Amino acid sequence: MHYIGIDIGGTTTKAGRVDALGAIAESVKAPTRAENLENLIDTIGSLVSRLAAGAPVSAVGVGIPGLRNSRTGIIQTSPHIPCLRNVNLEKLLQEKLAIPVIAENDGNAGAYGEWRCGAGKGLQHLAYITLGTGLGCGLILSDALYRGASGYAAELGHTVIELAGRQCDCGRTGCIETRVSGPGIVQTAREKNVSGDISTAQSIFAAAMQGNDGAKAVFEDTGRYLGVVCANLINLLNLQTIVISGGVMASGDLLINAAREEAHRRAFAASALDCPIVQSQLWPDAGIIGAAMLARDNS
Amino acid sequence: MHYIGIDIGGTTTKAGRVDALGAIAESVKAPTRAENLENLIDTIGSLVSRLAAGAPVSAVGVGIPGLRNSRTGIIQTSPHIPCLRNVNLEKLLQEKLAIPVIAENDGNAGAYGEWRCGAGKGLQHLAYITLGTGLGCGLILSDALYRGASGYAAELGHTVIELAGRQCDCGRTGCIETRVSGPGIVQTAREKNVSGDISTAQSIFAAAMQGNDGAKAVFEDTGRYLGVVCANLINLLNLQTIVISGGVMASGDLLINAAREEAHRRAFAASALDCPIVQSQLWPDAGIIGAAMLARDNS
Repeated sequence: MHYIGIDIGGTTTKAGRVDALGAIAESVKAPTRAENLENLIDTIGSLVSRLAAGAPVSAVGVGIPGLRNSRTGIIQTSPHIPCLRNVNLEKLLQEKLAIPVIAENDGNAGAYGEWRCGAGKGLQHLAYITLGTGLGCGLILSDALYRGASGYAAELGHTVIELAGRQCDCGRTGCIETRVSGPGIVQTAREKNVSGDISTAQSIFAAAMQGNDGAKAVFEDTGRYLGVVCANLINLLNLQTIVISGGVMASGDLLINAAREEAHRRAFAASALDCPIVQSQLWPDAGIIGAAMLARDNS
Repeated sequence: MHYIGIDIGGTTTKAGRVDALGAIAESVKAPTRAENLENLIDTIGSLVSRLAAGAPVSAVGVGIPGLRNSRTGIIQTSPHIPCLRNVNLEKLLQEKLAIPVIAENDGNAGAYGEWRCGAGKGLQHLAYITLGTGLGCGLILSDALYRGASGYAAELGHTVIELAGRQCDCGRTGCIETRVSGPGIVQTAREKNVSGDISTAQSIFAAAMQGNDGAKAVFEDTGRYLGVVCANLINLLNLQTIVISGGVMASGDLLINAAREEAHRRAFAASALDCPIVQSQLWPDAGIIGAAMLARDNS
């Protein structure tokens, strides 16, 4: 039997038909039509139809960017897709698709994917951190997806590590996301007066790879901030691994080595020893696979 | 049946005989003789004997300051009682006392006490924060004491909220403990040039109560830092309550109101709504009661 996993991103919605072991059999994508709810649901519906044409599908899992109330199923807030606010997306999709639909926060879905099928397989305690437009996170604690009181847990991007730090989109200051994210990397490059094209994290990374020392320093600096937040997680949760994922994975070792070094310098030695910081094994599909595995395990 | 709970502090070891519902029937204390392990164990042994003379006791629980490996029972490090390093205290005590002994990190024991018998009774997800010489913590997540991979979890005092902050005893900078603890409060008073006796957090609080505005500002400032770390916990773990305990409880509302205000300003509104910040119901006995309840539930 197959399951469909859907990852609703700010610009692109990706979907995959996934087998019971977590392998993607077929994948499709479409621009996220966030202008209104009807268009968004139509897009998802047509992705599901295309995938379901290939093989029988028994359930659909959807990863949603934003705070989703796990008791009511209602999305509390979704900064990049405002039409999802106050919506029970899984209920609407289930009515439209006539198939069981499970929804989950997208960071949680990614964590679930890495835990079931990827870099965290077999572990009891792990964090999944994904770097993109923002900093997403999911937690597996004591052998289960950790959701907290209402499903809002794992908002790591808006924890503070630098009280008098940068202004964040959320309205507060010092959130780690202002440093460790695509826009954060661009801002750091601007502040360091890096030469060349510094319009995106990708272009800054390309410059680093071509030997631009300023661009390299940006990634090392970002990695150190990532290391501080990893140290906080290690000291607080004594994890068995932290899985790093997301668009900046393309920067490979440059970022992650700096993060490892800083985390090991800052965390308690005994706890740091328990917790390797590793790259995602499922990137860029952790969200799709995780959502499909959530559908498999909860439908 | 009764249980003995022991709270080994840096200067005083406190012990209580506790009934099966968590009420203290009798309590005793003695100076912590940390100069060597034999004297420390003798002290604990004589406290247990005194308490056991009053009623039958079926198990002993001990709260230990430091990192205790939950898989081996060996204490990895105990900054204030160095003779505990590399020791399996529960094994030594069990041999001496001929009664089941359960050991646990002291922050974890306090959290367990508040969860079983105090301000967190009946909740699934909570943090317990205790302010004294340092900042201790314990976590109850998903209806169980959360220990992490090796029992080292909940080292909240050494999470960073101010990267370029004060030097910490642990060798790093910016740990929340450098602000929110007895010594942190004294340092803040010094930096603010508060007049009068500012030798201890207690004397600074006494000055605040007598209308010293500078001393008041110290507690409000400390409360705001406590609020930031509460906001981090709320955003990361979507808790149902945070219980504040420890010596600074004497300062009552001054500190905790500032913490509440800052936490609500900084955490996501939906998550903050889930999580009242409350005072300990068991202080100063949360550690004793928690250790006894751990003995009750695990022996």
